[in-house]
Amino acid sequence: MIAPELHPPVRLLMGPGPSDTHPRVLQALAKGTVGHLDPFYLETMNGLQDMLRQVFRTQNPMTMAISGTGSAGMEATVVNLIEPGDAMVVCVNGVFGGRMVDVAERAGAKVTKVEKPWGHVFTPEDLAPALASKPKVVGIVMAETSTGAHQPIEAISKAVHEAGALLLVDAVTALGGVPLEVDAWNIDAIYSGTQKCLSCPPGLSPVSFSPRAMEVVMSRKTKVQSWYLDVSMLANYWGQNRVYHHTGPINMTYGLYEALRLILEEGLENCFARHKKNHEALRAGLAAIGIRYSTQEGHILPQLNAVHIPEGVDDAKVRSTLLTRFGIEIGAGLGAFKGKVWRIGLMGYGSRQANVLLFLSALEQVLAEQDYLFQHGSSVAAANDTYV
Amino acid sequence: MIAPELHPPVRLLMGPGPSDTHPRVLQALAKGTVGHLDPFYLETMNGLQDMLRQVFRTQNPMTMAISGTGSAGMEATVVNLIEPGDAMVVCVNGVFGGRMVDVAERAGAKVTKVEKPWGHVFTPEDLAPALASKPKVVGIVMAETSTGAHQPIEAISKAVHEAGALLLVDAVTALGGVPLEVDAWNIDAIYSGTQKCLSCPPGLSPVSFSPRAMEVVMSRKTKVQSWYLDVSMLANYWGQNRVYHHTGPINMTYGLYEALRLILEEGLENCFARHKKNHEALRAGLAAIGIRYSTQEGHILPQLNAVHIPEGVDDAKVRSTLLTRFGIEIGAGLGAFKGKVWRIGLMGYGSRQANVLLFLSALEQVLAEQDYLFQHGSSVAAANDTYV
Repeated sequence: MIAPELHPPVRLLMGPGPSDTHPRVLQALAKGTVGHLDPFYLETMNGLQDMLRQVFRTQNPMTMAISGTGSAGMEATVVNLIEPGDAMVVCVNGVFGGRMVDVAERAGAKVTKVEKPWGHVFTPEDLAPALASKPKVVGIVMAETSTGAHQPIEAISKAVHEAGALLLVDAVTALGGVPLEVDAWNIDAIYSGTQKCLSCPPGLSPVSFSPRAMEVVMSRKTKVQSWYLDVSMLANYWGQNRVYHHTGPINMTYGLYEALRLILEEGLENCFARHKKNHEALRAGLAAIGIRYSTQEGHILPQLNAVHIPEGVDDAKVRSTLLTRFGIEIGAGLGAFKGKVWRIGLMGYGSRQANVLLFLSALEQVLAEQDYLFQHGSSVAAANDTYV
Repeated sequence: MIAPELHPPVRLLMGPGPSDTHPRVLQALAKGTVGHLDPFYLETMNGLQDMLRQVFRTQNPMTMAISGTGSAGMEATVVNLIEPGDAMVVCVNGVFGGRMVDVAERAGAKVTKVEKPWGHVFTPEDLAPALASKPKVVGIVMAETSTGAHQPIEAISKAVHEAGALLLVDAVTALGGVPLEVDAWNIDAIYSGTQKCLSCPPGLSPVSFSPRAMEVVMSRKTKVQSWYLDVSMLANYWGQNRVYHHTGPINMTYGLYEALRLILEEGLENCFARHKKNHEALRAGLAAIGIRYSTQEGHILPQLNAVHIPEGVDDAKVRSTLLTRFGIEIGAGLGAFKGKVWRIGLMGYGSRQANVLLFLSALEQVLAEQDYLFQHGSSVAAANDTYV
């Protein structure tokens, strides 16, 4: 039996990712496949690396895309830096910090967890006791997709390096949505995903390793446990030698290449400002109808808005009505936030005035059907005010 | 600096893969991204799994696509079945058997290598001494992409199971090009790639685990070393529970879905016959101009033709002229075959009469420029004869 023709419904992806793919990226995906050692493809890899360095704001030679999703990037950074028995500190304030603990333990790390309540961020003081034990690596999530928390990195980095450790940063949802400075902040290893603020489908994980991190990788006593993610071999394919490792995901690479062109055409600062503006409008709109954020004040990500589901409102029904009637996807809560939180994404190409206004209008309609009390006023009017 | 617009040259991919992507697959890649838990996407996954079972000829519930290339599939099958200290036998007669040894050792396996010369295949007798030591897993490559050798699986499988071991098969280049029977041949774990005979770009790895293999996975004493490839968790996402694991590579999944539709529309037997027919034509053409195969007679893959580079001919110049003048990519030799062998792929959509005839015509022109002696006659005429 042959499955039916593929006719995806038209969606507005306003959840925690994937976000809407930019039309130019969709077109890039459909361009003709070439060989993974074709001179054109090698040039494409060069261009991609060069643009990725600009977006990461780094000079790191070892900047490239892992052939897997963001979680593969997490695993790649961890397994290359960690050897069995190494001490690693992982900061956990949501699902993705928790995932990093699991990944690190599977790599043989002795993990010390530092925890904060979901939705909150870490200060250098929070890490001090764990840093006193002189870990090899400290892992932290810059944009916790499960809570919408925006972790400041610079001060943490200083404390981590004073303790002689390497800093590993999860930037899956961060990259392209908020300012991020790999070199200025002295980040040793970082990974992201294509399906958040880069407006590209999921499937690749941009990563970067500092020269100091690469020294650690190159002087390992044991082989990296993953052949597929071994960055010493990947460096030979993405570096000047171009030694075949695995077959690069050609068409997805086209997609990421075009996505990086788009963000550089707009300019990083303009892109961050756009994310901020649309977030402010959404926030004003939600506030007008009494919907509050779940994230620590002052540390709310513009691209991922985690808000309390109002009391008496049917979580699943709101989400399914938004999806079926308007084609709008928003995210459910994960883990500790399950059933308590909605996650509204304004990421990359999806961070647009039109999306903010449509979403608020649709949400008002759906909430009205559930006899929600609009005590304050119109969300759309409030959002519009911020654009004036 | 923004890298230039993406204009891939038009290529005819007649190397060891990636092969030419079918136009319908390219179109599928460009369809609108939906969420990884969207009801439509879950249906797409169901359809993909159902079609993949037909192509693998299996009833295995645990049949799905790993979010990485074929090498990630290799790693996924190995790391799920192997716990540190487990004995594994790996059959090595080319690059990919060698790669499996490396992957298995990194997973903590005690590996026994069984070797045959490059281009040759294994008999059950070749494995007997290694099987006597009662390994847990035996790994073998069905279609050795580095040598064009077509490994018979059925008799090997019988010997492996009589020894109480699990059979792990590399079908990266095999799937869709030659008959393959996961259930009838009692294969316990198998992986493939999208970029060979499935006419899809690289980026996903179809895999299947038998119920017996899944029992072994589910009764492990240690966690799978890779979080990303842990099939017990992947089973919860691809199975009925649909528990979020990592974000599925939506658009690549569309591509594989359409590729599977194409192969089932044609019919597997017709597809195999087409591969065989075009191989015979190519072979007759090459024979007519004195070019011989590098692979053991009787075990030549129709989809991957590894042939000796004629003496006095400049390997690199022939390949680069084919590429620049005709847009035809063929593969260089790898490892022991470097500089000695060309690898000519007739895979999936690329296995067409037109490609065979164009390639032979182009090759004749390029060889003539190198003063090659055409002792026997015209390759094109000989190829045409086989189509009559």
